[in-house]
Amino acid sequence: MDGDVFTADCAARRALDLVADKWAILAVYALADGPRRHMELRRQLDGVTQKMLTQTLRRLDASGIVARTEHATVPPAVEYALTPLGRTLLGPLAALCGWAEENMDAVSA
Amino acid sequence: MDGDVFTADCAARRALDLVADKWAILAVYALADGPRRHMELRRQLDGVTQKMLTQTLRRLDASGIVARTEHATVPPAVEYALTPLGRTLLGPLAALCGWAEENMDAVSA
Repeated sequence: MDGDVFTADCAARRALDLVADKWAILAVYALADGPRRHMELRRQLDGVTQKMLTQTLRRLDASGIVARTEHATVPPAVEYALTPLGRTLLGPLAALCGWAEENMDAVSA
Repeated sequence: MDGDVFTADCAARRALDLVADKWAILAVYALADGPRRHMELRRQLDGVTQKMLTQTLRRLDASGIVARTEHATVPPAVEYALTPLGRTLLGPLAALCGWAEENMDAVSA
């Protein structure tokens, strides 16, 4: 079956649901340059709460977009990185974030 | 000042906020082929409620992405169309919706 984001029960709509979210977009975009720890992401995603970031990373991990790695250090270090699937999102998300940065003055408050 | 979507109080973040929304994305994408009435959009955006669609169109109108035209017919007909600014969003949103349709089987439920 072809995907159709306009159809509510299509898997394409669920995939769009997942990424049509400000914090998901910013988290994926922030991981473009390599793996990051939770605290690093929290600092970079200005305004995100601990809870929102945790929920966002959990959803992206469960969907196969982000991979969570726990290093057996003391204390344990947890890192997040884009999966190959996650990397396919970078083009579309860079276009969307680029649009926001280029057109911010044109968009009325 | 350069726009930065990672900064909470930057206008670029507010522009991203506006479009990082499933119904906003689908409404703009649905207007790609020309103006539509409220009822036409409601049918096309499977699953949207009257209230969500009204709120979405109001925000897109207030932001200059969509233009609302009232035709003086009986009964009055209201049409929504993309503005030139709204049309600049089509490329990034087509990339995002295309990603969802192409990768729906890879994204875990």
